[in-house]
Amino acid sequence: MASAADTRIKVGIVGGTGYTGVELLRLLAQHPNVELRAITSRKEDGMHVAEMYPSLRGRVDIKFQTPDTAGLEQCDVVFFATPHGVAMSQAQALLDAGVRIIDLAADFRLQDLASFERWYKIQHACPDILKESVYGLPELNRERVAKAKVVGNPGCYPTTVLLGLAPLLKGGLVETDSIIADCKSGVSGAGRKAEVHTLFSEASDNFRAYGVAGHRHHPEISEQLALLAGKPVGLIFTPHLVPMIRGMFSTLYLRILPSALDTDFQALFEQHYANEPFVDVMPAGSLPETRSVRASNFLRIAVHRPEGGNQLVVLVVQDNLVKGASGQAVQNMNLMFGLPETTGLEHVAVLP
Amino acid sequence: MASAADTRIKVGIVGGTGYTGVELLRLLAQHPNVELRAITSRKEDGMHVAEMYPSLRGRVDIKFQTPDTAGLEQCDVVFFATPHGVAMSQAQALLDAGVRIIDLAADFRLQDLASFERWYKIQHACPDILKESVYGLPELNRERVAKAKVVGNPGCYPTTVLLGLAPLLKGGLVETDSIIADCKSGVSGAGRKAEVHTLFSEASDNFRAYGVAGHRHHPEISEQLALLAGKPVGLIFTPHLVPMIRGMFSTLYLRILPSALDTDFQALFEQHYANEPFVDVMPAGSLPETRSVRASNFLRIAVHRPEGGNQLVVLVVQDNLVKGASGQAVQNMNLMFGLPETTGLEHVAVLP
Amino acid sequence: MASAADTRIKVGIVGGTGYTGVELLRLLAQHPNVELRAITSRKEDGMHVAEMYPSLRGRVDIKFQTPDTAGLEQCDVVFFATPHGVAMSQAQALLDAGVRIIDLAADFRLQDLASFERWYKIQHACPDILKESVYGLPELNRERVAKAKVVGNPGCYPTTVLLGLAPLLKGGLVETDSIIADCKSGVSGAGRKAEVHTLFSEASDNFRAYGVAGHRHHPEISEQLALLAGKPVGLIFTPHLVPMIRGMFSTLYLRILPSALDTDFQALFEQHYANEPFVDVMPAGSLPETRSVRASNFLRIAVHRPEGGNQLVVLVVQDNLVKGASGQAVQNMNLMFGLPETTGLEHVAVLP
Amino acid sequence: MASAADTRIKVGIVGGTGYTGVELLRLLAQHPNVELRAITSRKEDGMHVAEMYPSLRGRVDIKFQTPDTAGLEQCDVVFFATPHGVAMSQAQALLDAGVRIIDLAADFRLQDLASFERWYKIQHACPDILKESVYGLPELNRERVAKAKVVGNPGCYPTTVLLGLAPLLKGGLVETDSIIADCKSGVSGAGRKAEVHTLFSEASDNFRAYGVAGHRHHPEISEQLALLAGKPVGLIFTPHLVPMIRGMFSTLYLRILPSALDTDFQALFEQHYANEPFVDVMPAGSLPETRSVRASNFLRIAVHRPEGGNQLVVLVVQDNLVKGASGQAVQNMNLMFGLPETTGLEHVAVLP
Repeated sequence: MASAADTRIKVGIVGGTGYTGVELLRLLAQHPNVELRAITSRKEDGMHVAEMYPSLRGRVDIKFQTPDTAGLEQCDVVFFATPHGVAMSQAQALLDAGVRIIDLAADFRLQDLASFERWYKIQHACPDILKESVYGLPELNRERVAKAKVVGNPGCYPTTVLLGLAPLLKGGLVETDSIIADCKSGVSGAGRKAEVHTLFSEASDNFRAYGVAGHRHHPEISEQLALLAGKPVGLIFTPHLVPMIRGMFSTLYLRILPSALDTDFQALFEQHYANEPFVDVMPAGSLPETRSVRASNFLRIAVHRPEGGNQLVVLVVQDNLVKGASGQAVQNMNLMFGLPETTGLEHVAVLP
Repeated sequence: MASAADTRIKVGIVGGTGYTGVELLRLLAQHPNVELRAITSRKEDGMHVAEMYPSLRGRVDIKFQTPDTAGLEQCDVVFFATPHGVAMSQAQALLDAGVRIIDLAADFRLQDLASFERWYKIQHACPDILKESVYGLPELNRERVAKAKVVGNPGCYPTTVLLGLAPLLKGGLVETDSIIADCKSGVSGAGRKAEVHTLFSEASDNFRAYGVAGHRHHPEISEQLALLAGKPVGLIFTPHLVPMIRGMFSTLYLRILPSALDTDFQALFEQHYANEPFVDVMPAGSLPETRSVRASNFLRIAVHRPEGGNQLVVLVVQDNLVKGASGQAVQNMNLMFGLPETTGLEHVAVLP
Repeated sequence: MASAADTRIKVGIVGGTGYTGVELLRLLAQHPNVELRAITSRKEDGMHVAEMYPSLRGRVDIKFQTPDTAGLEQCDVVFFATPHGVAMSQAQALLDAGVRIIDLAADFRLQDLASFERWYKIQHACPDILKESVYGLPELNRERVAKAKVVGNPGCYPTTVLLGLAPLLKGGLVETDSIIADCKSGVSGAGRKAEVHTLFSEASDNFRAYGVAGHRHHPEISEQLALLAGKPVGLIFTPHLVPMIRGMFSTLYLRILPSALDTDFQALFEQHYANEPFVDVMPAGSLPETRSVRASNFLRIAVHRPEGGNQLVVLVVQDNLVKGASGQAVQNMNLMFGLPETTGLEHVAVLP
Repeated sequence: MASAADTRIKVGIVGGTGYTGVELLRLLAQHPNVELRAITSRKEDGMHVAEMYPSLRGRVDIKFQTPDTAGLEQCDVVFFATPHGVAMSQAQALLDAGVRIIDLAADFRLQDLASFERWYKIQHACPDILKESVYGLPELNRERVAKAKVVGNPGCYPTTVLLGLAPLLKGGLVETDSIIADCKSGVSGAGRKAEVHTLFSEASDNFRAYGVAGHRHHPEISEQLALLAGKPVGLIFTPHLVPMIRGMFSTLYLRILPSALDTDFQALFEQHYANEPFVDVMPAGSLPETRSVRASNFLRIAVHRPEGGNQLVVLVVQDNLVKGASGQAVQNMNLMFGLPETTGLEHVAVLP
């Protein structure tokens, strides 16, 4: 650890004007090993980040720059907090300069190129780099992340669904033809783009489903579930929008296989995640709340088996901007640079 | 209809200090055939209702009275907006005086006495009256409600689940061993009692499940589902709390029976509810929002079949205080007194 | 009144896609004397209004049309729920066709042309019509509204400030050099335009001031205050944004003139508004809440004199979309067509 | 500073079940020099704090104890996060044991005993200790706090009003007969007690004033204003409730004295607070938002002079639970134990 304390990581951020960007800034500003070198935004070139985000006044003293002048190639790692398609267009140049990449968008999440192109309506710019990249869910891919040059940071929904299902699928304990993921997200998941349907007067005091006919996180979850189960998994995925800023809640419904009816599922989850610093398996009977992880990198899980029957209901909560995005990205960075995984991520959740 | 216009119904309300009470007052104050005669509250005896609920200033001019002095037995109908157990203790006396009863609590919802006593922890005071009472879901029991002396107004969750499933169960089109109802309610569903977990600072900017280990609406839904299906139905029911005041959203997951895979489910629902004034089957592909029914008696349904597979996802929205409680109670009253069912219930939803 | 019941008013709406538009539709759909003939939106030509606003499904059966095909000149009255500058460009043609006009934007609010042009950055298209138009605050200008061909419907803030100050200024009871209006508005006041600062994730769980350096309602309030006081009035006006959809709360601070220290201000307000159907002077000591008028046309006032000193604090609440916009517009229409002023506006506030 | 890094402070908390208590736990758990020794709650004796506040799971490992068994007298400092009246009853015993005290309630805020007893309806238990205690607003009383044995942590409203006015009153630049403080607070300011008026369904989507006839923070502010001004100050104080969890916004209205009209008020504030680590004077023209300080110890100020006239509008924001309560308490602790004032308080605000 002595050496870890001395580690200085030169960090660049591409596209830091959205919510995952400002959340990265919040976390990195308090990270003991990070030297924030550059943040780019063509549109806001020259503007102080604290002018856009007054929450950073007195804490982050850096200006937006254009990509040309930002000197990203002198960084140790660059985070892409950009729309889909940006990271893949700049990846090769950065790799050539020896810079590692963590993409918070979808460019390096899906190995299935056809699927990527169908859902994101763009051709992939660097399939070779994609092939070498690692899906950045540390709890599944810790060793591979540590050695990765390019990490595709998972989507927010996938993080909850995959961590909620991993112990069950790895153990082959549940039916896999029609797993149901009824998921609920705070509005910040939709980003900071000006759109009518996420206006306060539209989204407040309201609840609705969306993307029922198809959501981009569906193929991402499916691809990873298949890896966990060793075979294709049928998934019904229904995202909903909750009138809260941060927070994600996934209610997962599973049918226990006849062969697995004797399993102690509480013990299974507890053992599976016993050494995970950010996955909290709550005591039997618990009812997690999204606010219990607000602004922290924890993901909490509760396992229920109604009336002791043949169904499981798994409840998973996270902060979509932290464990579901920027916190997980920092967790990946820690792994990539040999730091203790929890460095700079030990915030206590803000409650109330 | 000529006579209907002249109908004057003398109405009493027992226990009007909670949210279903004030909602009844809002609706009845604007009902053309209602004469509001009495409202009781031992604790608030002598207080103007508009003092407790300033929203009623200038619209409702009546004071709370004790039950003894309220003259309820001179009313045509009495609504009970009380805790469970009150209506059943006063039912016989009112019936003897020729007064009809609509109970918004649970005293007349469950025909299974053992179930009632297990879930509500009280012995039923009048099993004979219960047996004659009618479950007040007009879309299922319209004719029986019209003739009823005592109506048990349905719970809010049951209204959404039952109307969302009725066409499928009546038609025998879906598996009935493990229907999943993932339900979400606004906080007003928890009532106006001072409790920590429904404080603004606890419930705002937060999302959580509750009652996973058992909820009183479960046996109520199950009893009615069994009537619809003609056999017991397995139900996984997960209620969640949404940081909004009003609104209820139920996401129902069903497996289509092999024999029913050719069904046009959109057409099925449209035909089933074609003549219902308050059930709106939305066009194929619709995504209902709770605000689209805010403060109105509508319940809207959308039917989805992801990727044309063997699963259905039925989305149902209502205002839990209107169609889920007081509006449905007024709808029942209209039926009981021969009025057009929509009288006094034609409010347009308040949006935004 | 017999004739009033038979009155049929053919109504057109220009630009009904914003919040004041949908609120007009909600109110007019339930108005007994209104025949909704046309609603225009170039962009949404051919779309059912209920497709844009599902709250109107089953209640409003009309489609958006282009202005050319809408036949507005065959209406009795046309409401403009448009951006500033639209009504004045179409006013002459409609007047020539005998159509009366109620503009919910600012084209006919300010008689001072220079002020209008400074604040709205456009030249006024029809100063002559403006001169004949009436400022549509019925409580101040009832008789003139009744005869008006063109009504400029007041801004939301001005309605609260003017009605909160009128009894004091008419009586010459307070200092007029620096009246303070600390005003708070729900987010719907900002309209339905997609903008970052009114996104849910920006405006929720947050409170801020805006327009401190200047707000368009300032000159409007000042012009009317000067009419009430008979001389120019100094006004400090600070608008704030509240994380709620509807509602406006104005806290007005005044210094009592030495000559007026003996005044019974509670009695003054009560007498002043004794016959007003929509202005509710609450009992002494009352603390009005915005929800007490939610979705209703009431405006409630409470008058406080801290420690019986020489200062007054006047609290005013309204629903910014009803009494602050569309409800007041309908109130004006009622006056213009000889209907009882409360017709179609007797909704009880929605609480909770 | 070398020694500061080694400082270990043994901390006890009395009454940690409310919001200031859990916020203290959040801050102290991350404080590098704090050893959390005991937390008391008679009612929750034996319960893990993380059971009551799941946000603390994995971060705080301590149980509630009764005061008798908690060993508070072995602590270096004890925080009282209790109702008013508790700290003063235990102060002498702790002082005798050499323990320092920081009271987050009102027992040591008011030096005027008569005022204390009038507003809090209890007799003061230890006037001598009160006389020696220090009003814990570091920006006003830094040196005295450093030496204090007992600190009365300021109320949330007073912190914003006093810091917003201090430069003006110290400079004798404004009229002091009727300063207006129009203040707005998030609901967490009302505490975690179960009460109807702070239920989600009451406080959400609503705005209201309260305590207009008198609020306990009024005499506290007045006492301190008199010290700043060197004479009694007239204050009109109107608190309002905002539907947000955390955050406080004070809008202060002042009349500039004729002799001070040439003052550069922006420069005045900037210079006054130039060395304050937690007071941020924003650039001229700024409009602070409460979310810019959410969960952080910053207080931000913006100074406006509408149209360059003779009035000032000062806008102040803070998080009522941090700078307005628990953060300020930790800031006081840092001073009392010779630590850098910002230790453990360098959180970046959580936005969005």
